[in-house]
Amino acid sequence: MPPAPKQQRDAAATRARLLDAATVEFAEHGLAGARVDRIAAAAEANKQLIYAYFGNKRQLFDAVIEGRVAELLETVPFTAEDLPGYAVRLRGFNRAHPELMRLVLWHTLECPGELLELEFTSDSNAKKIAALQAAQDAGAVTAATPAPTLLLEVLALVHGDILTGGSEAVEVMLDDDALAAAVRRLTAP
Amino acid sequence: MPPAPKQQRDAAATRARLLDAATVEFAEHGLAGARVDRIAAAAEANKQLIYAYFGNKRQLFDAVIEGRVAELLETVPFTAEDLPGYAVRLRGFNRAHPELMRLVLWHTLECPGELLELEFTSDSNAKKIAALQAAQDAGAVTAATPAPTLLLEVLALVHGDILTGGSEAVEVMLDDDALAAAVRRLTAP
Repeated sequence: MPPAPKQQRDAAATRARLLDAATVEFAEHGLAGARVDRIAAAAEANKQLIYAYFGNKRQLFDAVIEGRVAELLETVPFTAEDLPGYAVRLRGFNRAHPELMRLVLWHTLECPGELLELEFTSDSNAKKIAALQAAQDAGAVTAATPAPTLLLEVLALVHGDILTGGSEAVEVMLDDDALAAAVRRLTAP
Repeated sequence: MPPAPKQQRDAAATRARLLDAATVEFAEHGLAGARVDRIAAAAEANKQLIYAYFGNKRQLFDAVIEGRVAELLETVPFTAEDLPGYAVRLRGFNRAHPELMRLVLWHTLECPGELLELEFTSDSNAKKIAALQAAQDAGAVTAATPAPTLLLEVLALVHGDILTGGSEAVEVMLDDDALAAAVRRLTAP
C-alpha cells in the first residue's frame, strides 16, 4: 500500500487530536458545559475543523463515546461462557478509564434514553444477548432468566459502584472476588 | 402549641418553595448549569433569601438532595429480612421520582466521591449494614458475603437500569419479578 498523501495523514492526525481533546473536555464538563473553543485550543487545531469533521458539538460528543466504547469492546470481549471473568475484566477496564463512565453518565443525564438507540450500542447488545442465549442452550448458564434480563443484571453488578462515585471504601468492599462470586451466584446453571 | 407568628410561617413557606424550585432546576441542569436567578424567579422569592437560608449554590444543592433522600428513607424503610421486597419498593420509588436519580447522578459527576461523605448518607448506610448483619446472624440472609458488600450488590441490582437512561425496553426486561428473583438468588441463605 503506498503511503497516504501528506494532506490525508495530517487530517487523520488532527482528527485524532480533536477526539482526544474532546474526550477530556466532555468527561470533565459534559455536553452543555463543554466549550468547542477549549477543545480546538487543546488540540492545536482550527475550530472550524470540528464542524467540518464531526458536525455539531452533539455529534462530536457521540463520536467521542462511540470511539471509547469501540476501544472497550475490543479490549474486553464478551465471554458468555465465563461471565464472572467478563464482569471482573469489564470493571477493571472501567476503573482504568474513568473518563468513559463519566461520558456515559453525562450522556444519560443530558440526552436521556438516547444511548441505547445509538447503532453501535444496540448492535453490541444484540450480539451479547445472542451469545448468552447460546450459552444457556449449552447449559453453561442458568436458563431460569431470559438472556436480555440476565445481561442487564450482570452489567448492573459491574456498574454497581457508579453511584458511589469512586469511593475507595466501596472499591475495597466490592473487590474482584466478591464481584465474581456475585455474578456466579446470579448466573450459575 | 400556639400558632407560629406570621413571619415565621412565611419564612418556612418561602424556604419550601425555594427547595421545590431548586429541585426542578438542579435535576434539569445539574450544579454548574443551574441558575440561582431562575430558582428565585420560579419560587417567587428574593434571590438574597437563597443565600440567607442555604448559603451558596453548592449548599443549596446538598440541601435539596438531603431533603429528597430523607423522603426516600421515610417512604421505603430498609427491610433486611425481606431484601427482594425492599429492592422492588426502592426501584418503584426511584421510578416515581426520576428527579432523585438525576440529582444523585449530577452530584456524582460534579462532586465526585462526596456523596458518601455527607452525614445523612453515611448514617443511613451504617444503619442498613447493621440491620443486614443482624439478619445474617439470624440466618435469614446468606452469611457468605460480608454485609457491606451484600448491601452494595442489592443496591447495584436496583439501580441497574440507570445507565440505560429510562429506556422502556429495559424497564420491561428487568421487571419487578425479575428483580426480586435476582435479589433472592444473591441473598438467600
